[in-house]
Amino acid sequence: MAAPTTPTTAPTSTEQLHNLAQQLRIDSIRASTAAGSGHPTSSMSAADLMAVLMSKYLRYDFDDPQNPMNDHLIFSKGHASPLLYSMFKAAGAISDAELLTFRKFGSRLQGHPTPAIPWVDVATGSLGQGLPIGVGIALAGKYLDKLPYRIWVLLGDSEMAEGSIWEAFDHAGHYALGKLIGILDMNRLGQRGETDLGWNSAAYAERAHAFGWHTLEIDGHDLAAVDQAFAEAEKESEHSGQPTLIVARTMKGRGVSFLENKEGWHGKTLDEEQARQAIQELGGEHQITVQVQKPGSAPAGWSQPHNHPKLELPTYKAGDKVATRKAYGDTLAALGAWPDVVALDGEVSNSTYSDEFQKVMPDRFFEMYIAEQQMVAAAVGFSVRHYIPFASTFAAFLSRAYDFIRMGAISRANLRLCGSHAGVSIGEDGPSQMALEDLAMMRAVCGSTVLYPSDPNQTAQLVVAMAGQDGISFLRTTREKTTVLYPPEEKFTIGGSKVVRQSDKDQVTVVAAGITLHEAIKACDTLQGEGIAVRLIDAYSVKPIDSRTLHEAAQATQGRLVVVEDHWPQGGLGEAVLEGFVNAPASAGNGEGGGGPMALQMTHLAVQGMPTSGKPEELLDAAGISAGHIASAVRALIK
Amino acid sequence: MAAPTTPTTAPTSTEQLHNLAQQLRIDSIRASTAAGSGHPTSSMSAADLMAVLMSKYLRYDFDDPQNPMNDHLIFSKGHASPLLYSMFKAAGAISDAELLTFRKFGSRLQGHPTPAIPWVDVATGSLGQGLPIGVGIALAGKYLDKLPYRIWVLLGDSEMAEGSIWEAFDHAGHYALGKLIGILDMNRLGQRGETDLGWNSAAYAERAHAFGWHTLEIDGHDLAAVDQAFAEAEKESEHSGQPTLIVARTMKGRGVSFLENKEGWHGKTLDEEQARQAIQELGGEHQITVQVQKPGSAPAGWSQPHNHPKLELPTYKAGDKVATRKAYGDTLAALGAWPDVVALDGEVSNSTYSDEFQKVMPDRFFEMYIAEQQMVAAAVGFSVRHYIPFASTFAAFLSRAYDFIRMGAISRANLRLCGSHAGVSIGEDGPSQMALEDLAMMRAVCGSTVLYPSDPNQTAQLVVAMAGQDGISFLRTTREKTTVLYPPEEKFTIGGSKVVRQSDKDQVTVVAAGITLHEAIKACDTLQGEGIAVRLIDAYSVKPIDSRTLHEAAQATQGRLVVVEDHWPQGGLGEAVLEGFVNAPASAGNGEGGGGPMALQMTHLAVQGMPTSGKPEELLDAAGISAGHIASAVRALIK
Repeated sequence: MAAPTTPTTAPTSTEQLHNLAQQLRIDSIRASTAAGSGHPTSSMSAADLMAVLMSKYLRYDFDDPQNPMNDHLIFSKGHASPLLYSMFKAAGAISDAELLTFRKFGSRLQGHPTPAIPWVDVATGSLGQGLPIGVGIALAGKYLDKLPYRIWVLLGDSEMAEGSIWEAFDHAGHYALGKLIGILDMNRLGQRGETDLGWNSAAYAERAHAFGWHTLEIDGHDLAAVDQAFAEAEKESEHSGQPTLIVARTMKGRGVSFLENKEGWHGKTLDEEQARQAIQELGGEHQITVQVQKPGSAPAGWSQPHNHPKLELPTYKAGDKVATRKAYGDTLAALGAWPDVVALDGEVSNSTYSDEFQKVMPDRFFEMYIAEQQMVAAAVGFSVRHYIPFASTFAAFLSRAYDFIRMGAISRANLRLCGSHAGVSIGEDGPSQMALEDLAMMRAVCGSTVLYPSDPNQTAQLVVAMAGQDGISFLRTTREKTTVLYPPEEKFTIGGSKVVRQSDKDQVTVVAAGITLHEAIKACDTLQGEGIAVRLIDAYSVKPIDSRTLHEAAQATQGRLVVVEDHWPQGGLGEAVLEGFVNAPASAGNGEGGGGPMALQMTHLAVQGMPTSGKPEELLDAAGISAGHIASAVRALIK
Repeated sequence: MAAPTTPTTAPTSTEQLHNLAQQLRIDSIRASTAAGSGHPTSSMSAADLMAVLMSKYLRYDFDDPQNPMNDHLIFSKGHASPLLYSMFKAAGAISDAELLTFRKFGSRLQGHPTPAIPWVDVATGSLGQGLPIGVGIALAGKYLDKLPYRIWVLLGDSEMAEGSIWEAFDHAGHYALGKLIGILDMNRLGQRGETDLGWNSAAYAERAHAFGWHTLEIDGHDLAAVDQAFAEAEKESEHSGQPTLIVARTMKGRGVSFLENKEGWHGKTLDEEQARQAIQELGGEHQITVQVQKPGSAPAGWSQPHNHPKLELPTYKAGDKVATRKAYGDTLAALGAWPDVVALDGEVSNSTYSDEFQKVMPDRFFEMYIAEQQMVAAAVGFSVRHYIPFASTFAAFLSRAYDFIRMGAISRANLRLCGSHAGVSIGEDGPSQMALEDLAMMRAVCGSTVLYPSDPNQTAQLVVAMAGQDGISFLRTTREKTTVLYPPEEKFTIGGSKVVRQSDKDQVTVVAAGITLHEAIKACDTLQGEGIAVRLIDAYSVKPIDSRTLHEAAQATQGRLVVVEDHWPQGGLGEAVLEGFVNAPASAGNGEGGGGPMALQMTHLAVQGMPTSGKPEELLDAAGISAGHIASAVRALIK
């Protein structure tokens, strides 16, 4: 941490606050001008609000960002990053020199905030996400941590058009999250002109009020009014179960004649001469350092429980029929023995079976209703507070939260997602309920883990593995009951696979996972009757895929491969297998040093056309991924 | 169409309406019991509402579903499909025998409504989508068609938790869509228990009112009250610019003692004996057929313009530097000459350059603010009304609308989506703004087209091709200005590719698209200096991919391939190329009849770790996809 250049106590007089606000504006301009890009005017509108907040209300120990008593400050309008970084400088957390590395390669002060910075909880920059994540942190604070930290969320007015914001308003009202305080920087101007509601402060307040919030409308540049509003919000947060929204009327580019309330300045920086003039208009550079109030101590004896006793996992008997979604729920319930495991539901807990967790651990089960964006955002919030969140819904509906999942990876969140009702095998409900793109979507997340078990005992092992897995992991479960294939004591690990059938005479390798493994087993039985030996691989770990085992099998079967999946042909198991051959270890025979490239002759069976309703077996067959089609594909490869 | 069994005129007495409502309930039970699945109780709660609507208010010609004057009826709560299909029977549009094919393989009466049925505009079943699509149809009706059709949307109460619903409330209020009438079937019970707001009718009304709607609260089983509410809504729709929400307090399973307002009956069907008893309680079967009111004639001379005059496309000079996003905007503006082309923006039109269209065709440009779900839903609505919608935002933010895009494919919507700011090459803004999963996401959409041009003249050709393309097409554009490579007269078609460098001595094939093509050209120049000849392919059509050209190139270069993309390794260009080899035509050398499988030796360069901020060239290099890395990969393959 940089040494403060001019240490002061927290400014409290209006003049001191004004000087600090001007410094935040000036530094926002300096940083963005040095970078040649960024959003100075969107920073300037909120500078008065943030000057007062950091001087008098925020409780945060910059020397100890993991202090559980710290308030949380989220810039939901992440493009105001110059303001946030200028606050870090004013708090003495970074030096002026570091401030001027803004947006440069190698700097942690990126274009939008990310947790590469220790005082940033989550990445923002995709609008409409900070508030729903704040809801998650507030849920953790109120119901699990039971600590008095506040969650301050700086909102832009453009992002009030995002539905996810209203999911957050809804849930914050419903769960009476009094410690959540939204600060709406209503500067009227979006990127390309006026926002939907402009300066209609009353409309924002009416909406928030209708969702159960306490609301205040103020002039966001009147420092006394800002001070009073925060005081009121703070008081509310101490006794009331109502979250507070402060609607602050502000001006973009405030304080500089040629920027203030002017169109055409969004995401534009000032050149050197413009910056000089602006700084002059703002009263010239200050070097104020604010001693941000540290939070009090946690209650005596408080600690966040992280003990992980040995689990009693559910077991399933060979030959029984059990859906993997049921095994997910059973295992989640068993994981309830770990006090930091949390479950979130999108109003389908009796379909995903996360209600099994609710039955045993109702206090750590959070009903997020049909609001998948909020569900994933809340999981991010729980991850910020070091819990182990499992969030589940139909896999098809996780597509609703894809932007949140994508951003979750940038936030370095540890999320466990489970999507049930995968593929055409769900049957009668029809295509709207069938996940056929979930593997593609989840594979294309940085650092993700993608699992697709075929058996309940296997599912149990993988769910436990997910609990210990960093980053974003996804489990795809099947609606239908399927035969138990593996004994409870068999081990399944992330990155592994299971060779289900194997002999010296194997002619073709079949790769399947989940429901198609059961079809493939039937196909192998049929082919065995015809004297055709098949190597069958259960590729339950779709990412990372077990390249080595695939490669060995392909070598043993002269490169003949059938991959079968209940998913569109794009981005799922088939392409994961192909990518596995591209990236196979050289010693396994690919590339130099391994005897040259392998000639693959692969048939890829996947869902090509739009499915309809019908019985699962009818739809598997119509999609060309049933046992009969697998057997035909094998025969065709050796004809 | 089936002959009505007991033709009647529209029932208007309370008793007649009651009998019709009971018939709709009974038929919902019969159909779902015959299917063994479905949602009878969610149908029964809304039966009184729909009985009155179809008897007295709906204007619809079942013999002419394409009549432009028809009202639109959308079941946003798509799981109430038994009710919708029972209405079709009561309207004489389907026979009782067909009703009983519900959810059976081959029947058009699928588990959730789809446009396989001629009287269904769009697929529903993913909650929270019907209302925003209704907004799109209402925008078309008010601003383009200028016809008096109404859009009736039946909403479930669980789906009021979806943020997309509030995006719709916001936009309907903002655009003063008086012809949009929401009917909220507030039956209190979601899938797994009580909803967020239960029977708190006032809370729903207050929220809708805050978003600019006219609201009514009624008992949804009081036929007189329902009648009066529709009459008022209809009157409002005639003169007011306010959309109307009717909040109807109802009971799930209404009318049957063991179902009414009971938990545990969501998505459950009655067995034969239960069905018998329920039908008895509901007064026994009726065979009422309703003559649904036909709409009036369109104003004399009205026709929807579909003339497509020859376009004056923008052209770009070889050697100039122009961003493909700019070429998108320029071409969209040129397409404005077609009167059915519509553009939608997510508040970033000056970044995507869709503002070029706005400048020339302001009346067909719709600002959807930062509400990507609503933007795509509105595009679906315009597609329903036979317009050619182009919707654009940052490609990263299209991930916000993935569920709407997925459902759009089931809706058979013709959508053109453009995502700008692809990949790490955007530079300083950082990872939140970088689309690195968009190709994976868009490829995994049924029937989709995915294009990624590298040149502005090529972009112009492809944008025009998209306008004529059915289904969902996606164009990925680049933020940075890049060198014009191709002359304006060169033709580029969907499914094609361009061989950029070629000789008899080519040792390696490099496949690139968009920004990486420019890096690859630099790499080829370097390698040429070293005496290494490379075949370079511009794979601008990522889906469908040009398998034949790829295969020929691979054959010519002994299977040595480098694929380079500004995207995660999963689901993008690299995997599209691999899949292209799996599915290559046999005559091109793959599989039997073509000389056996080809041994590929492929190096896949893609973005592996989380990017940061920096200059585009720094980030391309850090990601391992710059010219230097391409050249190294080529050298390694021939070492």
